[in-house]
Amino acid sequence: MRAAGVDSGGSGSDWYAMLSLVDIRSRIAAGTLTPEGAVRLSREAVAAREPAVGALVSVAQDPVIPVEGPFAGIAVGVKDIIDTADLPTQMGSPIYAGWRPRGDAAVVSRLRALGACVLAKTTTSPFAGIDPTGTRNPHDPGHTPGGSSAGSAAAVGAGMLPLALGTQTGGSVIRPASFCGCAAIKPSFRLLPTVGVKTFSWALDTLGLFGAEVRDVAYALAHLAGRPEIDGAASPDAPRIGLVLQDFAGAAEPEAQRALEAARRAAERAGARVSEVALPAPLPEAWALHGVIQDYEARQALAWEIAAHRAELPEKVGRQLDAAAAIPAAEYDAARRCAHRSRRVLKDLFGDFDALLTFSAAGPAPAGLGSTGDPRYNRLWTLMGVPCVNVAVPGDGLPVGAQVIARFGDDGRALAVARRIEAALARG
Amino acid sequence: MRAAGVDSGGSGSDWYAMLSLVDIRSRIAAGTLTPEGAVRLSREAVAAREPAVGALVSVAQDPVIPVEGPFAGIAVGVKDIIDTADLPTQMGSPIYAGWRPRGDAAVVSRLRALGACVLAKTTTSPFAGIDPTGTRNPHDPGHTPGGSSAGSAAAVGAGMLPLALGTQTGGSVIRPASFCGCAAIKPSFRLLPTVGVKTFSWALDTLGLFGAEVRDVAYALAHLAGRPEIDGAASPDAPRIGLVLQDFAGAAEPEAQRALEAARRAAERAGARVSEVALPAPLPEAWALHGVIQDYEARQALAWEIAAHRAELPEKVGRQLDAAAAIPAAEYDAARRCAHRSRRVLKDLFGDFDALLTFSAAGPAPAGLGSTGDPRYNRLWTLMGVPCVNVAVPGDGLPVGAQVIARFGDDGRALAVARRIEAALARG
Repeated sequence: MRAAGVDSGGSGSDWYAMLSLVDIRSRIAAGTLTPEGAVRLSREAVAAREPAVGALVSVAQDPVIPVEGPFAGIAVGVKDIIDTADLPTQMGSPIYAGWRPRGDAAVVSRLRALGACVLAKTTTSPFAGIDPTGTRNPHDPGHTPGGSSAGSAAAVGAGMLPLALGTQTGGSVIRPASFCGCAAIKPSFRLLPTVGVKTFSWALDTLGLFGAEVRDVAYALAHLAGRPEIDGAASPDAPRIGLVLQDFAGAAEPEAQRALEAARRAAERAGARVSEVALPAPLPEAWALHGVIQDYEARQALAWEIAAHRAELPEKVGRQLDAAAAIPAAEYDAARRCAHRSRRVLKDLFGDFDALLTFSAAGPAPAGLGSTGDPRYNRLWTLMGVPCVNVAVPGDGLPVGAQVIARFGDDGRALAVARRIEAALARG
Repeated sequence: MRAAGVDSGGSGSDWYAMLSLVDIRSRIAAGTLTPEGAVRLSREAVAAREPAVGALVSVAQDPVIPVEGPFAGIAVGVKDIIDTADLPTQMGSPIYAGWRPRGDAAVVSRLRALGACVLAKTTTSPFAGIDPTGTRNPHDPGHTPGGSSAGSAAAVGAGMLPLALGTQTGGSVIRPASFCGCAAIKPSFRLLPTVGVKTFSWALDTLGLFGAEVRDVAYALAHLAGRPEIDGAASPDAPRIGLVLQDFAGAAEPEAQRALEAARRAAERAGARVSEVALPAPLPEAWALHGVIQDYEARQALAWEIAAHRAELPEKVGRQLDAAAAIPAAEYDAARRCAHRSRRVLKDLFGDFDALLTFSAAGPAPAGLGSTGDPRYNRLWTLMGVPCVNVAVPGDGLPVGAQVIARFGDDGRALAVARRIEAALARG
């Protein structure tokens, strides 16, 4: 789909036009838009669309709008597990109702230093877990936007904000981006610092970015990480792409299979050599062990909430944390060793491939708001710490994306290959 | 030295009797002491000694004293960069004056769940950096207790508390323990969760424990980590110990050399086979690169403090963070790769040795309060993430310790070998 005022129109759904960060910056550079005017675009979109979507927890009434810096004029949404000094940070939980941290999270401070306007906090599943929010999918209010970064994906997908921060521990960035039809990156582990971000699992929690198109999140990540080479990294002319079906995670739904096939054909049209690859041992085992690491750590990370506020924890996370008490330390240690071995095997695999291409989600956003969807095609990559990009695949009906993955530390490569596929998809 | 009321007496200094966690627990189990009475012992010691030492930032006036659990009766000091819900957490900085976090850090919540009485917050260098506190060495008020965990080391060394929490990013646990004559462990990286602990460097920050003797920190770590096997792990009958002089860090002072030699002879008397080992490449290079990783991350971790409160940052850390702006991302990446390779080389080295033995500090606590001492014999091991134990070496003058190190994840082995050496030193 096209961003910044161009409605690409999916015949089966009500596609919003998204706001492109790069377009806004270009218009500001050309003198046809001011930073204040750009933030006003977001405010107007919020006023028009937020009542139907419910993506925002709070909106800054009179935020600072810097006039200089690479993010000047960019209104940003910040997932509500990420500390902000000037807006409450409530973790999606009544335990933190009205809570005001002392300072900004590191990434928020960086955003402000680069000129961004932190306009809103976005809804999150409680503690970025699996209990759903009340946020609605901007493409169909009867469907979930996914989670746990529900509000960030929905706000960008609804064209309210050109940039939003989320986090992924299982599949909480790539999956909601796929459901909401926007681009997103889950960068390499700790490329963006998680200081000031509520911890669920310290080995997994990863900050991510939502934007209209891949170029938008590439621009944002390059600046936030202070690594200009990330944006505009060249894709090889004939990238070697490994198509990964993740059979160990079960079959995807037909819509997701069609989206992946469309992305594959687009890649080939754009010169890629695509070959199917089965992930070698112990990667399928690592996939299965993701939850052991996540839950063992979550029970420690949320020790205070469990001890002091067990009754206020949401149903699913509460049960998950109760069950985690039974995980032996030795099982956690074994899972971490498996993950460690798997990272080395995966690194070797990237000797043969510039990128991997796989499902972003099992299918389009499920109906209803009772579930945030299934992260089964995301969790291995979170555990591996490798950069993952969601590319929206145009089509009928609710959005479905495809996921492009590169080796650890090569976020620029993942973005470049994703951009190439996105462009080929747009050419049709 | 001996703990729990037995004053071992160093001829050249004023040695306090320390409070032994294990002794207190034994007396409670035997019915000769109540948890309340045990906490009163700490309160009385605080009343008597704190005015001269200045180790505490705040003391709970009416703390909960559980009567059950493995830490019942244990009054704990918590470094003031670690969140507590019921006492301010001020990071050693006016920026956080009076700051009250919403909840307890994960490790504090765990302490309480095990029955501990969180009695006091202990002084810390601002943000656990290198600017000194006003805390005095309990063995000589004209000398520093070290840092950054100044108050935790001093409070345990002064016999005020049987257990205190600190953190180490360079040498902030092992070095002050050496200066204050107490036992301490810096466990394997992330064995104890740092959730709710102010970040300086996410790749390095490690929670550690101070106690009277090695058995005390072994008991505490085993319970806190939920890994009973850590306490009472058997030392091999004839442990193979590598003596590491860390020549790349320069020569140690004569007192530290004598302490290391005494520890070596004690180990041999206890059956160990000790042989000198030079650390292979790239370990010396990793030692030199520790600061690159630390400072590059600190500048991000403290982004809000730099942006909003630069003038209130302390002198040394302020300059350090300013200078860190010049570290290129590529230099950080290269340092991390070197550290990664070094961990594998070190792992292989532990095929030949059960433990390594090296300096805990360059010498006894420096005179004056203008410096927290030099972490040059600690920083490599923090970067490697391996468990390190300080063993106090009895002698004349100010305390000096020796450092016992085991492979990653084998904290029980490090403690067992340290205990064996400590016992042999006590036998003389």
